[in-house]
Amino acid sequence: MDLKQEISKRADFFNKEMYKFLSCGEPEKLYDAARYLPLAGGKRLRPVLAMISCEAVSGDVCKIVPLTIALELVHNFTLVHDDIMDNSKLRRNTSSVHVKFGNPTAIMAGDLLFAKAFESMHNISSDCNIFKNVEYGLIDCIKEICEGQQLDIEFEQRKIVSEEEYIKMILKKTAVFFQYAAEAGAVLGGGTSEQTNALSEYGKSLGLGFQIHDDYLDMSSDEKTLGKDIGNDIRNGKKTLIAVHALNNASGEDKKNLEKIFGNKNATDDQVKQVYFIFKKLKSIENAKNKAIEFVDKAKKSIEILPNSNSKQLLLELADYAIKREK
Amino acid sequence: MDLKQEISKRADFFNKEMYKFLSCGEPEKLYDAARYLPLAGGKRLRPVLAMISCEAVSGDVCKIVPLTIALELVHNFTLVHDDIMDNSKLRRNTSSVHVKFGNPTAIMAGDLLFAKAFESMHNISSDCNIFKNVEYGLIDCIKEICEGQQLDIEFEQRKIVSEEEYIKMILKKTAVFFQYAAEAGAVLGGGTSEQTNALSEYGKSLGLGFQIHDDYLDMSSDEKTLGKDIGNDIRNGKKTLIAVHALNNASGEDKKNLEKIFGNKNATDDQVKQVYFIFKKLKSIENAKNKAIEFVDKAKKSIEILPNSNSKQLLLELADYAIKREK
Repeated sequence: MDLKQEISKRADFFNKEMYKFLSCGEPEKLYDAARYLPLAGGKRLRPVLAMISCEAVSGDVCKIVPLTIALELVHNFTLVHDDIMDNSKLRRNTSSVHVKFGNPTAIMAGDLLFAKAFESMHNISSDCNIFKNVEYGLIDCIKEICEGQQLDIEFEQRKIVSEEEYIKMILKKTAVFFQYAAEAGAVLGGGTSEQTNALSEYGKSLGLGFQIHDDYLDMSSDEKTLGKDIGNDIRNGKKTLIAVHALNNASGEDKKNLEKIFGNKNATDDQVKQVYFIFKKLKSIENAKNKAIEFVDKAKKSIEILPNSNSKQLLLELADYAIKREK
Repeated sequence: MDLKQEISKRADFFNKEMYKFLSCGEPEKLYDAARYLPLAGGKRLRPVLAMISCEAVSGDVCKIVPLTIALELVHNFTLVHDDIMDNSKLRRNTSSVHVKFGNPTAIMAGDLLFAKAFESMHNISSDCNIFKNVEYGLIDCIKEICEGQQLDIEFEQRKIVSEEEYIKMILKKTAVFFQYAAEAGAVLGGGTSEQTNALSEYGKSLGLGFQIHDDYLDMSSDEKTLGKDIGNDIRNGKKTLIAVHALNNASGEDKKNLEKIFGNKNATDDQVKQVYFIFKKLKSIENAKNKAIEFVDKAKKSIEILPNSNSKQLLLELADYAIKREK
């Protein structure tokens, strides 16, 4: 079984459904802006996770199409708004929505995607109680994503963030949504509560490992290219797990240098390099890598109770992929 | 019966419930930003409309609290985002949310209010089908509000907008939400379908009259103060019904002057005055006033089938108030 091929197969199926759902509308510019990011591709990890989770409890993937669409639309609405907040110019190798359509239309396109996600949710189940519970879970998730994103912004302004606070932030910003995708896929697939809880725990740990690895990726590019991606994070004082570990463990000269350079918008390339070598010396990069592995191991352990199947195997491989991928 | 007193009574009741619902949360700054506008007062017209509509079909107002909260939160979420789009500095006599908390937190505060509105919707009815139908109506409304707001932005860039297009725009931007408030209040109040349809039509016509009167108010300040509020609308090329009428009916010199001045950011105060007098000469202001009266008459006619009651009387007076108010 080839994981990438299995992901692609499901992403292709999903993409066709997404294309059908996101039909054109008037005013054209608003709908073009709303369709722009969701139809520009992407890994479709959340829909795929929900699908495999549904399969793992012997559910019918065709029946959770509305859920998968809602998941991807919520994810995309947060990306559209985040890119405005961070003034990020690029997304999925193309201009971000606000760069292409302007801020006002981009804000509204995000709002429209939010509404469309709930429109799609209305078709997740003919059982009204299941509908209500699963929809309520999505509302809760969105609140947590907003809270996590706000914490992320606030952490940039703070000198010290504890590892515990960092984990709480990425839990809200990223992991609860992975958790929700896996859990909702299992609920709608007809899983038992034991199976659903197992997949919920799996999704949460997977999300944590995934986000830590994301931070690690930004910090692990070739040393020669140091001063670009890495430089941005260091100059902005971005509190990744790596930075959090170093700031909490540095002493003496290292501590002084970190305080001087980390979060300093005008830091030189040499200073950025200096911080990078402090990270290495304090084993902060290694620590982050190990934490990601820990969460992935936890994710895999969570689903031990599931019956053996191709889907279970896929979930195990997906967990490994979350910390092995190079982008 | 004093209309203002009756509105205040209901708004006070609503405000207490809103305060309870919008409790504090973490991160504090995000919740402060989200609570800022909804707790800053305002006319509460949409909740009050839903309440009177519910009363008019002998419903229990206490039971529609969750609906009224959702209505006001959706309204406020659109205001928070609109103020960012328009870069409006003031709202309800105080700084707008993005001025006080910054754009990133304001965008997220709007998103959080959106999510909280749907959280409140989950308590509108124990009957799952009613819940689903009424919630779906709200989703539809939000899509239309986004579309209407986009049209409003696009119209500013266009030379000519027909009266029909203008009505379509304010229908989406303002009136469908009034329609929804009145209709949902009646549905949850247990109204018959004849009553519900009547109140739905009432809400729509009321919303149209209300929005046209809003435009009229901006244009009817004392002539001595011309060049301030009015100047902004004229310099920005804002397509109010007054401007639409004038642009479509001017000829000769008037037409030339309108083309030169209307939408010209650098127009002098004298030029603004010139446009104002063209509006007067072409009876564009009078025309808008008459249109607003027409819609209000239509609103009142819509509810003829309702049994006589204090609430019906209030609805009739509310319709008159929509075009008589001075702010």
